[in-house]
Amino acid sequence: MAAAEIERLIRLLARLPGLGPRSARRAALTLLQRREQLLEPLAQALAETAEKVTVCSRCGNLDSSDPCGVCLDPKRDPSLLCVVEEVADLWALERSGAFIGRYHVLGGTLSALDGRGPEQLRIAGLVERASDPAVTEVILALGATVDGQTTAHYLAERLAPAGVTTTRLAHGVPVGGELDYLDDGTLTTAMKARRPA
Amino acid sequence: MAAAEIERLIRLLARLPGLGPRSARRAALTLLQRREQLLEPLAQALAETAEKVTVCSRCGNLDSSDPCGVCLDPKRDPSLLCVVEEVADLWALERSGAFIGRYHVLGGTLSALDGRGPEQLRIAGLVERASDPAVTEVILALGATVDGQTTAHYLAERLAPAGVTTTRLAHGVPVGGELDYLDDGTLTTAMKARRPA
Repeated sequence: MAAAEIERLIRLLARLPGLGPRSARRAALTLLQRREQLLEPLAQALAETAEKVTVCSRCGNLDSSDPCGVCLDPKRDPSLLCVVEEVADLWALERSGAFIGRYHVLGGTLSALDGRGPEQLRIAGLVERASDPAVTEVILALGATVDGQTTAHYLAERLAPAGVTTTRLAHGVPVGGELDYLDDGTLTTAMKARRPA
Repeated sequence: MAAAEIERLIRLLARLPGLGPRSARRAALTLLQRREQLLEPLAQALAETAEKVTVCSRCGNLDSSDPCGVCLDPKRDPSLLCVVEEVADLWALERSGAFIGRYHVLGGTLSALDGRGPEQLRIAGLVERASDPAVTEVILALGATVDGQTTAHYLAERLAPAGVTTTRLAHGVPVGGELDYLDDGTLTTAMKARRPA
């Protein structure tokens, strides 16, 4: 139908979350009609992102430096460590402005259904970081899903020997909800009212 | 918050139709988490599209060759010319498989509100192509909107001296609807039942 290059572009765009085959076609046309303002900058931004952005070897965040900007920020409280499932959750907490410590991105939750065990997550690194005497509290900011809560239980047990206080986000996170979809107010309330795990 | 490269990528993605700021963030994260399968191929596809795809100087279609594949296809009926507003409409008709002639993409409709007159559209080229003795019928496949129908009226008058039959898509196109959003069945019916303008 259309040129092979356009077909390929549409197929790739359709694999982005939130875009189906039809909206991918619209997006491809918009890109082609706005070459200089959109197509070329986007091609360049993707290439630069692919080249520069890496996973922080300390916390699992995505940034152009390793360790990432959050890990290197001297204004962060070194006694607080906040465990999140994904980078999207880290971004959501940063947007809420409710947390001033550092993060640890697990890379998902334990899941019997998906066959994800502790060795598939960034748990060894977490235990190591929590054993640092500077860290006094680990906040398990995981989703209020079955897998999220199972993972929080598991982590609380794994972290007990490290002698840190483990806390969880307060009730306020809607059951079945994911952090990235919450409004900042709910996230702030939940962060302030966190309680022992 | 996130790295400057990621922020820039999110801002650009959010300008695509169908993606808002939140879904653009999700899309950026998906891209970063699927570098080899998605981010790098998409960067490459965009760069290739920017480099290779051009506007067909004959019909206004987008393709990697000029004239485009449809204009060059020897199996197309040279007596039929189908006028559409945008390339998306051309794609929609091609998907329906209801048309075997060639196209002419206007690049929009006449619009008093948006200040778009005949000189902003690909109308001179259309009159020239319609004057070719090989062309016997020009199908005005414009949207059933006020602007689309005004443009069809105008084109029927402009094409009268060329001695071609001008037709329009049959009733069946929902009033206020745009071609790109119709299902193939409706498009096929409308194409088959076309009537003199």
